[in-house]
Amino acid sequence: MTIDEPIPPTPADAVAGVAERSAIAGELLKELPLDWRAGMLESIAQRLDSDADPLVEVAGAETHLPAQRLRGELARTTAQLRLFASVVREGSFLEATVDHADATATPPHPEIRRILQPIGPVGVFGASNFPFAFSVAGGDTASALAAGCPVIVKLHEGHPVLSTMTAALVTEAMASVDAPPDAFAMIRGRSAGIALVTAPATRAVGFTGSERGGRALFDLAQSRPDPIPFYGELGSVNAAAITPAAAQTRGEAIAVGLVDSYTLGAGQFCTKPGVALVPARSGMRSSIEAAVADRAGQPMLTSAIAAGFRAAVDEVSSVPGVRMLVDAAVDPETLVATPALLSISAEELLAVASDALREMFGPACLIVEYETDDELLAALHALAPALAIGVHAEPDEPLAQRLLADAARRAGRVVWNGWTTGVAVTWSMHHGGAWPSTTASIHTSVGATATRRFMTPVAFQDVPHDLLPPLLKDKHLSRIVRRVDGELRLP
Amino acid sequence: MTIDEPIPPTPADAVAGVAERSAIAGELLKELPLDWRAGMLESIAQRLDSDADPLVEVAGAETHLPAQRLRGELARTTAQLRLFASVVREGSFLEATVDHADATATPPHPEIRRILQPIGPVGVFGASNFPFAFSVAGGDTASALAAGCPVIVKLHEGHPVLSTMTAALVTEAMASVDAPPDAFAMIRGRSAGIALVTAPATRAVGFTGSERGGRALFDLAQSRPDPIPFYGELGSVNAAAITPAAAQTRGEAIAVGLVDSYTLGAGQFCTKPGVALVPARSGMRSSIEAAVADRAGQPMLTSAIAAGFRAAVDEVSSVPGVRMLVDAAVDPETLVATPALLSISAEELLAVASDALREMFGPACLIVEYETDDELLAALHALAPALAIGVHAEPDEPLAQRLLADAARRAGRVVWNGWTTGVAVTWSMHHGGAWPSTTASIHTSVGATATRRFMTPVAFQDVPHDLLPPLLKDKHLSRIVRRVDGELRLP
Repeated sequence: MTIDEPIPPTPADAVAGVAERSAIAGELLKELPLDWRAGMLESIAQRLDSDADPLVEVAGAETHLPAQRLRGELARTTAQLRLFASVVREGSFLEATVDHADATATPPHPEIRRILQPIGPVGVFGASNFPFAFSVAGGDTASALAAGCPVIVKLHEGHPVLSTMTAALVTEAMASVDAPPDAFAMIRGRSAGIALVTAPATRAVGFTGSERGGRALFDLAQSRPDPIPFYGELGSVNAAAITPAAAQTRGEAIAVGLVDSYTLGAGQFCTKPGVALVPARSGMRSSIEAAVADRAGQPMLTSAIAAGFRAAVDEVSSVPGVRMLVDAAVDPETLVATPALLSISAEELLAVASDALREMFGPACLIVEYETDDELLAALHALAPALAIGVHAEPDEPLAQRLLADAARRAGRVVWNGWTTGVAVTWSMHHGGAWPSTTASIHTSVGATATRRFMTPVAFQDVPHDLLPPLLKDKHLSRIVRRVDGELRLP
Repeated sequence: MTIDEPIPPTPADAVAGVAERSAIAGELLKELPLDWRAGMLESIAQRLDSDADPLVEVAGAETHLPAQRLRGELARTTAQLRLFASVVREGSFLEATVDHADATATPPHPEIRRILQPIGPVGVFGASNFPFAFSVAGGDTASALAAGCPVIVKLHEGHPVLSTMTAALVTEAMASVDAPPDAFAMIRGRSAGIALVTAPATRAVGFTGSERGGRALFDLAQSRPDPIPFYGELGSVNAAAITPAAAQTRGEAIAVGLVDSYTLGAGQFCTKPGVALVPARSGMRSSIEAAVADRAGQPMLTSAIAAGFRAAVDEVSSVPGVRMLVDAAVDPETLVATPALLSISAEELLAVASDALREMFGPACLIVEYETDDELLAALHALAPALAIGVHAEPDEPLAQRLLADAARRAGRVVWNGWTTGVAVTWSMHHGGAWPSTTASIHTSVGATATRRFMTPVAFQDVPHDLLPPLLKDKHLSRIVRRVDGELRLP
């Protein structure tokens, strides 16, 4: 399937109706068997895989990302859909729980059966930097569909044709398994996006994007007459903390790894290391500077992002104490940006407010040079909470344990002797963190548990067995993980 | 222990410091073993039980609730603390998850270990109507402490001496097991409460109370520079839906049960049936009216609540179509209120906006008379989402299944042939619902899973086994429920 034109903008006053139809489709969707739901996710995966060539071609033209990266991202995206299919089949995501009546309890209690049910229509705002994995058929869509919710995607203007094509393939795949037609929809335009967040039938929103845009939509969602959950993955200044022992043992390799990581994909990752905490006078600064020197520029996603990158680097470089070691060159025509490298001392960092160090979305990193272990830890705490922190240390140094513990207080993921870029799609992944990295630190936007955002519990008290929803009957329960009278039982 | 005077009001500008000390205590608290944490919860339960007599006496004087009810509520409260102790010992609330490195996965992934950790200081705003179960040592406090969070309670002015006494006992019990002294604190006053929601160190808020008060604090929490989760259990208009078959088979018994339920505790329950949907011309209306006739008045909690009850009944009775069958008499001196009964036809109900039917907190119920099954279902949908709905039906009538399914769309709990008042404290309980019944429909304020509100995930990537937090080491994991490489394993 090849499509040349994106869908036209959606009139804002049409969006409430879209959400209303979505809600009706959702009622049908949630009655269909879990095995069917898993199959639907697999059909979408298969349909996308089979059109990988045209998808990657269109994505490349719209995003300037290299084909190999896009191919890998598409594979990750369809693997993600398949992971959620397995989550649906496994069944523990329902959190099925039964307590039989107990007259001897304090106080005595009747029979109660609890299960999670889909929350209803989910609005999805994807990101420009992952045109597959965090867009039309990305993590929010996959986890919402897995939860049993209908989805309404707001098209991202960074890749409108790709979005239209992906949406057509998703629609086709869902139709092939007879999904309710309105269970998936796409809208376009800024005012339509706002209308999606405020539409009465919208029950939750998943968002990946900037802190500014995310905050505006979060505020809208919370100021509704009936506030709804808004799961925003915003920006993040992720630190790489390098101990003196690590610098001494393998400083050169770390320097090259850091530059590889912060320039990967032109630095357009929310998990990019944006700050490197290095020991002063260890040679780390000059090693990093040397590693940056020969890096070629790469084209950025959009002219707005390229301009934003230039502005962010300028802004951070004007913070008192910050020195520009290597300035970025951003070509407004080709959008090619070369990497920037800045530095500040930990002492100077501690003298400025943490929000002065805003995210530089693009290939830029700020070196923070510290004098003592305490200064390193203080600097880590001075930074805003983040999605991920890398800890580069030797296992036997006492500082390692302190750093790991402190990093776990400041970020949703802690990486040992590795780079924060790259987010695995597994049961154990947590892609989240305290504000400003997300709007909802107790939830994740990547990994099997992302479904939990879009499910709401319901308890049935004393309902005769025959009248229970099929998923709560003993016959179904015996096939899945469930808790009975307090005890977890396997199928 | 007997205390005569409540604590004095807390200066608002002192609250940020209280929260800051709480955060420091929280860092110590979360390092203590889970078995210790469970023991701390049990110590609190034991301390409260051993002072049951003075507690019930003071509670009775402040709330006008009968001693027997208060004794039962205290037993429920300490059973709740013990349930959370068992939740902590059982360990599945940590959601420990391990994925070993897999080079063959798409894409390949490193080792990742995920666990939930305490979110930090939790502000607790209790309710007047449950001076034990939803106050100082109630569900929010118990679940936050179980999650490993320090707690700061805002004293409820409905029972200030009881609150002070309970807080002293909690403090004493925690000191007896050497808990960090600032892990529990209590503040007093309206401006102090506001300061608690906005204090930088406060990480989450649990609230039980009115929609108006809850909305104001929710808005404050969401408009912080760093929004925090606000778990508010607000008000609820809970329906009891009675089918024609049920009315015919056991109409008299249902009528008496309804009146028992809506006048219990002077109707001061968030789960009180506030609306009864009954078949027109079935005799249900007159049966209910007859059952109300001989009911004595009961004293309400506070003069503000008594006045609010009077105003709410007046307001609902002025909604077009509503008829007053039995008016309430509220004595402003003794606070004794007799029950009110109002009625409207389903047709008239469908003609007015659902929010016209606000909660009447107190002994009042609105009868809605429907003509057809469809009108019954339409009336159910016209009401705002609720905490609980009772379905009174015969198991073999087709309407029963439709009603149950529709009720599950409109409420967090569905009760079959029973009354919604009474919330069991079990693993399976869900006490929640969509706005306006709560501010966070995906979470519960009662039951074992209430801890999830106060825990945030963290993932450790490639961290050497020796350097992992103790709870994520294989030795601990083997003793608890955990997921390894996608598969749930029992201890």
